[in-house]
Amino acid sequence: MEKGDLYEFLKIDTTSAKGKGEEGAKFLVDYMTDHGIEARLIRHKAVNPYVVGELNVGAERTLLVYNHYDVQPVEPLDKWNTDPFNPTEKEGKIYARGVADDKGSLIARLQSIFELKKEGKLKVNLKFIYEGVEEIGSPNIEDFLEDYKDQLRSDYVLWEGAGRGPDNSPEIVLGVKGLLYVEVRDKTPKDLHSMYAPIVRNPAWELVNFLNSLRSDGKVNLKGFYDRVRWLTEEEARLMKGVKQEMESSLSQSVPENFMRKLVEEPTCNIAGLYAGYIGEGSKTVIPSYAFAKIDFRLVPDQDPEEVLKSLLSVIPQQFEVKVWGKVKPYRTSLKSEIASALISSARRTYNVDPSVLPNSPGTGPMEAFARILNNNQIADGVGVDNSSSNIHSFNEWIHVEDYLLAQRWMRELLLELGNMP
Amino acid sequence: MEKGDLYEFLKIDTTSAKGKGEEGAKFLVDYMTDHGIEARLIRHKAVNPYVVGELNVGAERTLLVYNHYDVQPVEPLDKWNTDPFNPTEKEGKIYARGVADDKGSLIARLQSIFELKKEGKLKVNLKFIYEGVEEIGSPNIEDFLEDYKDQLRSDYVLWEGAGRGPDNSPEIVLGVKGLLYVEVRDKTPKDLHSMYAPIVRNPAWELVNFLNSLRSDGKVNLKGFYDRVRWLTEEEARLMKGVKQEMESSLSQSVPENFMRKLVEEPTCNIAGLYAGYIGEGSKTVIPSYAFAKIDFRLVPDQDPEEVLKSLLSVIPQQFEVKVWGKVKPYRTSLKSEIASALISSARRTYNVDPSVLPNSPGTGPMEAFARILNNNQIADGVGVDNSSSNIHSFNEWIHVEDYLLAQRWMRELLLELGNMP
Repeated sequence: MEKGDLYEFLKIDTTSAKGKGEEGAKFLVDYMTDHGIEARLIRHKAVNPYVVGELNVGAERTLLVYNHYDVQPVEPLDKWNTDPFNPTEKEGKIYARGVADDKGSLIARLQSIFELKKEGKLKVNLKFIYEGVEEIGSPNIEDFLEDYKDQLRSDYVLWEGAGRGPDNSPEIVLGVKGLLYVEVRDKTPKDLHSMYAPIVRNPAWELVNFLNSLRSDGKVNLKGFYDRVRWLTEEEARLMKGVKQEMESSLSQSVPENFMRKLVEEPTCNIAGLYAGYIGEGSKTVIPSYAFAKIDFRLVPDQDPEEVLKSLLSVIPQQFEVKVWGKVKPYRTSLKSEIASALISSARRTYNVDPSVLPNSPGTGPMEAFARILNNNQIADGVGVDNSSSNIHSFNEWIHVEDYLLAQRWMRELLLELGNMP
Repeated sequence: MEKGDLYEFLKIDTTSAKGKGEEGAKFLVDYMTDHGIEARLIRHKAVNPYVVGELNVGAERTLLVYNHYDVQPVEPLDKWNTDPFNPTEKEGKIYARGVADDKGSLIARLQSIFELKKEGKLKVNLKFIYEGVEEIGSPNIEDFLEDYKDQLRSDYVLWEGAGRGPDNSPEIVLGVKGLLYVEVRDKTPKDLHSMYAPIVRNPAWELVNFLNSLRSDGKVNLKGFYDRVRWLTEEEARLMKGVKQEMESSLSQSVPENFMRKLVEEPTCNIAGLYAGYIGEGSKTVIPSYAFAKIDFRLVPDQDPEEVLKSLLSVIPQQFEVKVWGKVKPYRTSLKSEIASALISSARRTYNVDPSVLPNSPGTGPMEAFARILNNNQIADGVGVDNSSSNIHSFNEWIHVEDYLLAQRWMRELLLELGNMP
């Protein structure tokens, strides 16, 4: 199907961090309505409205399609070789902000649906939720789901769009990691000359000692931390594909042999920020009056950020302050679910290779909120247009034209598959 | 003696950090010359000239008086209640930049010398070295001493001027701590999304683990670190006076019972600065591409910064970079030395109390360079005008008028004492 509609959509600046998006939302409502899908804006607590839609073909089962229409800021603009809001096709590639994340997948899927609908081959009902604030962390998404859960209920949820993995095979992702993001802070009344070091507290030392106690040999020492980890089965581990060399070149670091498995199933405690005292050029002999660390725990199914936080608080020195900046639960859909098997077989038919199946993403998203609030345990990601070099969130974002067409094809196969579920 | 000359001197801005000082140096040369002391400027490698002087009375022994005429910047100016360069007397106090550190002691000592000279009671030769870059770390002081060591040779050295200790008794300081200031840095090629935490290095973690390994229970773990420490004798420990409550109120922290002893004899490893990753408001899930710490080791006699550095380098992870920002050797003059006993008995006669005698300062200074290059092992501090609340290096710097007069008296008693040495 033609790319003209995609290009029109890409031209609209929907940078949520700058309060833009409304125009993109309206474009979608019109676009869906024009093709016979009931669609409307819902202004909720977020800066950009939600777009919800429905296409009931009287089938037994319903698929909820989730995408977001907002994009990341384009800065630094001078690093772009083309105008980010004027999609440019060159040597089989399309360059534009949002083409890979997430406008390309959104439109490719819709066009597939329009086509099947026109052909009368749609055997699964559809619902849509398009978010306009994903790139600023989906604030209030849980409130929204709570308020509209009856309208959003479905049998399956298709997540925003995983495309091609690092070995170029289509990627299917059945879950997400969770997150606990905390800031821990220690302080004294004032900076002191370091000659007093023999007799006073140094928050920097206290912080270093505490942080150090959190891990041994890379493993997290918190009580019960690994108790709920659902380690991968051999089957799950076997279905993930990764290319070590590609990963190493993308990270500019060497990675272990079993890097894919570790990425997916290992929970981590990461120091994302660290500060104390004098950090300018040269030397200053000071005992810092405060020190802090920003720490993110990536959690895997079935760890619970609340439990991890409780465990952390039970060992944290009494004088430390703790600020919680984020809590997201992990989620994982079964490899044996209908949505997983439909995604796998439709990918195989589309691309003529076995897809790479990740039990969960190494990253985080609000999938668990969808599962819990919409009472749905078949949520998975696939049918995307991007590849592992698409420069998502960066400058010169791009996709292959061919991958756009293949994503349409994959959506078609998936819908047919779901329509044939016994 | 009158304070008018001191006030004239205080009015001259000699902020070395701002390149000022020449005018102050010239004032001193004139002032000394006018009173029959041979004095001259020496332009060396420093931004401000040295003032050197000599007064030979044909005595057997010579005392070298060391002071500095430069001052710290006055900022923040709006915190001053008076003009820092217009000395103001109020309720028995003098307020001005440099009055406590170090112009007051410099002039008080000189005036005492003028008086004794006039009375014909001077029985010790005098040499003078006034530095103009002490407040910016005395750069090139060793080179200067090397180049002029013959002219500066003496039997005793009187350091810049310790005044009243926290219990208000006069303070005598027989040495200084040394220093090793290093920056250690760890890095990877680039920042990474924290979802890669299971498979990549995190310099922040590597730094935390390394720092933590440097100490156990507050003691430094470096090999041989304590081998050369000259622990205090019971006599040395007994002569130090400190007031716990005063120290706690000045530091706004509780301190241990034996705080004076610890301050003087304990070497330390202090984290003065710490940085990695994201330190702004809120959260960012990043694996920092670099992390660094600034560390100062305060060393006591007879530790050697070179040896400590060597020991540190032997345990530092191979990928770390190390920058050395400072190396100063500790020094301690014997309690049994003539200069120590002359200072103690002259202080007792002046103040009618036992002085507090510190085997070394908790802080650092280039005393060891004086001892080594000038081949002198009798260097001590006392005969100062300040007290423990004088706001040195801060705003509203002040001294008691009475302490100015007492410092003159102490200098007189010290000179008489040294003149009577057998």
